[in-house]
Amino acid sequence: MTDTALVVIDMLNTYEHEDADALVPSVREALPSVRRLIGQARSASAPVIHVNDNFGRWRSHHGELVASALAGRHPELVEPVAPDEDSLFVVKARHSTFYGTPLDYLLGQLGVRHLVLCGQVTEQCVLYSALDAHIRHFDVSVDPRAVAHIDPELADAALRMMETNMSAVLIRPGDSVFGTARA
Amino acid sequence: MTDTALVVIDMLNTYEHEDADALVPSVREALPSVRRLIGQARSASAPVIHVNDNFGRWRSHHGELVASALAGRHPELVEPVAPDEDSLFVVKARHSTFYGTPLDYLLGQLGVRHLVLCGQVTEQCVLYSALDAHIRHFDVSVDPRAVAHIDPELADAALRMMETNMSAVLIRPGDSVFGTARA
Amino acid sequence: MTDTALVVIDMLNTYEHEDADALVPSVREALPSVRRLIGQARSASAPVIHVNDNFGRWRSHHGELVASALAGRHPELVEPVAPDEDSLFVVKARHSTFYGTPLDYLLGQLGVRHLVLCGQVTEQCVLYSALDAHIRHFDVSVDPRAVAHIDPELADAALRMMETNMSAVLIRPGDSVFGTARA
Amino acid sequence: MTDTALVVIDMLNTYEHEDADALVPSVREALPSVRRLIGQARSASAPVIHVNDNFGRWRSHHGELVASALAGRHPELVEPVAPDEDSLFVVKARHSTFYGTPLDYLLGQLGVRHLVLCGQVTEQCVLYSALDAHIRHFDVSVDPRAVAHIDPELADAALRMMETNMSAVLIRPGDSVFGTARA
Repeated sequence: MTDTALVVIDMLNTYEHEDADALVPSVREALPSVRRLIGQARSASAPVIHVNDNFGRWRSHHGELVASALAGRHPELVEPVAPDEDSLFVVKARHSTFYGTPLDYLLGQLGVRHLVLCGQVTEQCVLYSALDAHIRHFDVSVDPRAVAHIDPELADAALRMMETNMSAVLIRPGDSVFGTARA
Repeated sequence: MTDTALVVIDMLNTYEHEDADALVPSVREALPSVRRLIGQARSASAPVIHVNDNFGRWRSHHGELVASALAGRHPELVEPVAPDEDSLFVVKARHSTFYGTPLDYLLGQLGVRHLVLCGQVTEQCVLYSALDAHIRHFDVSVDPRAVAHIDPELADAALRMMETNMSAVLIRPGDSVFGTARA
Repeated sequence: MTDTALVVIDMLNTYEHEDADALVPSVREALPSVRRLIGQARSASAPVIHVNDNFGRWRSHHGELVASALAGRHPELVEPVAPDEDSLFVVKARHSTFYGTPLDYLLGQLGVRHLVLCGQVTEQCVLYSALDAHIRHFDVSVDPRAVAHIDPELADAALRMMETNMSAVLIRPGDSVFGTARA
Repeated sequence: MTDTALVVIDMLNTYEHEDADALVPSVREALPSVRRLIGQARSASAPVIHVNDNFGRWRSHHGELVASALAGRHPELVEPVAPDEDSLFVVKARHSTFYGTPLDYLLGQLGVRHLVLCGQVTEQCVLYSALDAHIRHFDVSVDPRAVAHIDPELADAALRMMETNMSAVLIRPGDSVFGTARA
């Protein structure tokens, strides 16, 4: 165990909403980096926590959300990063991964102090999660290659906000992220 | 729709824990009243919201929790009150139905102002949920026949605390609970 | 009473921190608009709620924070918008006006559904407060002339994020903000 | 510094409310024990945190609350335990010391893992605070001699609930509470 966890944000998606056309190419580009981070987290025995919107469906959790996303318009963007048997899973109802969810409690139980964020949307849920993590004194890293955006200018501004105002580290190629395993 | 919702607390249970022996006879006695409340809520088009512990299993939601409870020691206490297709479902990690859950948000979205509580355990989760609802200015009703306890003396004290200090109404036989349907 | 409240963010400031030099000219420019909004809120009997950082001083509330800001480097930026006898006052410890504060509860008690935001810093606390209000389904308006920034580019991006992703209304000159008084 | 903090609940009180007659004799009896705990906390360099109701007065903090309590019906119950220069101070709007307050955040910043509770009312705010602390995995101790009640039977039940269901330790005469100072 390290004290670092990977948080995979909103990668279960039917891509049937209004902004999907703007979003999909960016997701396609980020996908290999999200996969790489998941692999690195697994190798370091770091928790992988999927936090995903419930799309207003208050009975559809985990299995149903995965099935629904796989039955959507872009299963090829879902299947490679779908939660596996070892993944933890937190459902959210609103934008931030912390609002109305047990994420803060779960991280405390896991002894996590450092979050690596990836997923979508850079200038929305990723930004908001970085903020809510920073407010709670978690260390935050974001891999700019592993996040997908709708609006490229706002995404750039969001990354700069995370770095300047939320003390986030922007991960560069070759950076070691998940550190050495704890005893 | 009324502005009242029925909250069914922790009725998905494997009854394999330490306190189960003390709890099971009380659940057996409360079961018909829980069923009656569910039926009354359905007739009045009031939301039925199951809020249930995840027992530390951060991937097991809804379907898996139901299956696990039905495979436990007392399926006859689970099956009659298991969530149906119309039930809403909120997973909790700790004692209170409000802590680290989207319940407050969901109730706001539904326009609910009055909670009817039933389930288990009277002197624990039911008491804590009454408190957290009262703090947020929800009206609270509890049906003493539809809640199950481990310790009868503490359960009596809990009901008295709810009535005296949390402005809860203790439902009596014949009381109309879910009111007239809203237009 | 209207269902609109004015939220004045972090205007009690000693301006002795690192970013003050970049911030002060922008505050000076925003000051008349903040005053105008306070006047309009008063005329409409809308609540004026100051939400202010405690700067890590866990005993210094209200009077002491006002005194400390008036004794700082720029009392001329504090005195014109200091809380008066009718102002409500909420202390915060971190960036967002909602995190670890009773603001959500207070707004509920006041029957407020629409927040008008002003103060500092546009690309930080104002942005975060707009987000946390939007997540809770409050309507949000921001007056771009009544908010002060450190980084003009990030401030522009922040205003665009509020408008595009948080359904915020950017108030324009001549807009009626506080509406008609409620009965 | 130890990892233990003393939380003094609602001891700033005008005693002008309805339940005051039932409460005052119990406060009078608890007062010396509250003073003793404050002294012991000071000696061990443990933080003393007063958490107090604002009585719906959204501008009256710290100094004003102290002044108002000292001007109430029983200044002799306030003065001996009023916050001193080293005390931390958190204002609450509702029953629990955690709801809508920065207490959780403050405890995290102080590195506190163990709370010693004293003050009033045993079967209300003290009970609720024990619950909210236990839910967040703080260790909880309560000194039965240093808490004051309105209803003696419910107070007994509350202490038993804390011990049985919230893993709280009931402090006995002679127990060492604040431990050895940390390096």
